[in-house]
Amino acid sequence: MAKSELNIAVLGFGTVGTGVVKMLLGNGELLARRCGKKLTLKYIADLDIQRDRGVKVPKGVLTTDALNAIADPAVDIVVEVIGGVNPAKKFIETALKNKKHVVTSNKEVIAKHGREFIALAVQHGVNILFEASAGGGIPIINALTKALAGNNIKRIFGIVNGTTNYILTKMYRDNADFAAALREAQALGYAEADPTSDVDGYDAAYKLAILAGLAFNSHFAYSDIYCEGIRRISAVDIALAREFGYVLKLLAIGIAHAEDRVELRVHPVMIPERHPLATVNDAFNAVFVEGDCVGETMFYGRGAGELPTASAIVGDLADLALHYELGGTNPALHFDFTQKKIIPVGEIFSKYFIRLKVKDETGVLAAVSRVCADHKVSIKAVQQKDASGAETSLVIITHTVQEAALQKAVEQIAALRQVLEVSSVIRAGL
Amino acid sequence: MAKSELNIAVLGFGTVGTGVVKMLLGNGELLARRCGKKLTLKYIADLDIQRDRGVKVPKGVLTTDALNAIADPAVDIVVEVIGGVNPAKKFIETALKNKKHVVTSNKEVIAKHGREFIALAVQHGVNILFEASAGGGIPIINALTKALAGNNIKRIFGIVNGTTNYILTKMYRDNADFAAALREAQALGYAEADPTSDVDGYDAAYKLAILAGLAFNSHFAYSDIYCEGIRRISAVDIALAREFGYVLKLLAIGIAHAEDRVELRVHPVMIPERHPLATVNDAFNAVFVEGDCVGETMFYGRGAGELPTASAIVGDLADLALHYELGGTNPALHFDFTQKKIIPVGEIFSKYFIRLKVKDETGVLAAVSRVCADHKVSIKAVQQKDASGAETSLVIITHTVQEAALQKAVEQIAALRQVLEVSSVIRAGL
Repeated sequence: MAKSELNIAVLGFGTVGTGVVKMLLGNGELLARRCGKKLTLKYIADLDIQRDRGVKVPKGVLTTDALNAIADPAVDIVVEVIGGVNPAKKFIETALKNKKHVVTSNKEVIAKHGREFIALAVQHGVNILFEASAGGGIPIINALTKALAGNNIKRIFGIVNGTTNYILTKMYRDNADFAAALREAQALGYAEADPTSDVDGYDAAYKLAILAGLAFNSHFAYSDIYCEGIRRISAVDIALAREFGYVLKLLAIGIAHAEDRVELRVHPVMIPERHPLATVNDAFNAVFVEGDCVGETMFYGRGAGELPTASAIVGDLADLALHYELGGTNPALHFDFTQKKIIPVGEIFSKYFIRLKVKDETGVLAAVSRVCADHKVSIKAVQQKDASGAETSLVIITHTVQEAALQKAVEQIAALRQVLEVSSVIRAGL
Repeated sequence: MAKSELNIAVLGFGTVGTGVVKMLLGNGELLARRCGKKLTLKYIADLDIQRDRGVKVPKGVLTTDALNAIADPAVDIVVEVIGGVNPAKKFIETALKNKKHVVTSNKEVIAKHGREFIALAVQHGVNILFEASAGGGIPIINALTKALAGNNIKRIFGIVNGTTNYILTKMYRDNADFAAALREAQALGYAEADPTSDVDGYDAAYKLAILAGLAFNSHFAYSDIYCEGIRRISAVDIALAREFGYVLKLLAIGIAHAEDRVELRVHPVMIPERHPLATVNDAFNAVFVEGDCVGETMFYGRGAGELPTASAIVGDLADLALHYELGGTNPALHFDFTQKKIIPVGEIFSKYFIRLKVKDETGVLAAVSRVCADHKVSIKAVQQKDASGAETSLVIITHTVQEAALQKAVEQIAALRQVLEVSSVIRAGL
């Protein structure tokens, strides 16, 4: 029996929850016309239902009792926008067991428990959709699961964390150092008081686990993903990168190899300034996907924020509404059917940017070059800055080399009598 | 009753048809795993079933009798990749009347008859999907109908014709003239022997009619869209544009205005070289979409070609397969619910690039400036090239002005004693 109306319980009245409420109330008529069903806001559950969120909410909708909202037989779809694992995990499980469809923006809980949720959804004949969990407003999960379903995905990589992109853009534009750029991002609400998840790359690793799982039809534990954040990036690195024609971005990278092996890694990359990703600035995200048939595609948009993230949540609601009578089908339900192995980071190939603090004396470059040659690390470019007293700075860009060889070379370079410090080692090129 | 297999009849064994066949045969197992259903190639119908397409086809699949393939009760989905109106229109109608879902890449027939097809599909409880009809491999129609369904779309614009983008890229890079670049595009298979549909902008107008209809929930006759191609673009214009920091692209533009009015137009635009669309080269397409909630998004990929277009067709097949048991639901079925009016091109606002051939004598710029001032056309930049004898070239970039005023000014400029020719008038800026 076709329903003409679907009742929604929104769990979490924070930034994203407020955006979802605004969209359901403000664009409700448009949505109903486009979906053929009215999407009715039945509950907003939050511990704090007093604070003004700048949106007028219908009477009787606010509640502090999320479990009661989930259990209400009138509720068809539960939107989880609390974030974090607890209590989101329990609420999602309860909703699925109550045969409610779930839509969530929660990358952490999906990266950590998505596989269990999907099994639970299948068991209870409902769906769990999570477009908003990666890439904010960008419909990248839809693309992977439907539009590009006929493709073997060869590579998926991009900028998936808006906070770090904001910080790196700020550092690039204003020659600001990391601490100052972070403080500004915090003041503007782009970064949280504890910025660990964004700044150390965990947020990007959650998203990569989700996207790579869908792209490569496998399950990847986010904790198995090599993850390096941007804390150690200095204004000097960014300024030098610019001189070499590079822009520094935090990238999440997934590459399919033969024999069910994949590269999955999150780390800063110096990308050529003419690459399309180099112009993705501020809090914007962009994801490249290369398929064996479609070729190269790119998806660009706001990766975070109240309304962009809400837009993806509401897109999932529209998708559910458009196919509601069917129930039970979800592209994601079919994704996880191969077991792929992550290649150790030592086995990847890259170019590298190496910045050294060295004694200002003759023979330094010769010594460093000799170590590189010994490890078959071929040097592409060198820059030695004018000395400022007894020490000077030496920057090397290598040709493509295997990470393990590079690391061994760097170890020996660090041990050289003339080398005072290995200041930075950053992967370069795309 | 859930089917474990869907039978497909492909009508048309040309470029796109060959791509679809290659994907169904080559990536069939992947598709089946992702969709939970096997997609079986039951028929390939074409008048010519002798020519080698470089793909090994299963026995008994090739037929010259499309209507018989459509009528076969075993066929679930008809893929129409013939192109053009006849006989594609008849085949699509017959398929829908036979309760077969239809997937097509045919922009012309969808732009001209999509509305009738959708009514017919609703009547017979089946779907018609046409992701491949605009933007090739880019899932822009999916984005508009599902992921961005909660947004009022404010603007949609981009490069949607690969042939003209190839030609313009060639002209820009090699300083080639239009005729030479077209010949090369033809030799490489990017342009047809009769290039009218691409070069004069009709192909882009078909796509804009489809995209704007979905974005603005209205029906637009493609023939009501203002359409200007690239035939009159010269190497000189492109070289001069470059001097002013512009790159010339053929854009399809849709902008929502108040009171159910929209701008819809296809024409060359000089866009700033730092705009992301300026770097979309060769046969690539890119579409910008701005929604009231999601903000700016961009979708980039190959706009044409055997496998990229087939990728979109197969994406629609996957979408149908994933939601097969439901039948009857199609986002597009709900799109056409407002009546919007296209604003006459004279009422739009733009900057303009004007190139004049003038007599090499004093007072020319004064005369031209006076006419501009009379029509409140404010001049942003002027360039007068060194004279080569009795005549010289004068280039003007205006500030933003209404098209009607600009056209009147141009008319009077053309009539000036000192002006030998108005060589080009091209819209500039984004």
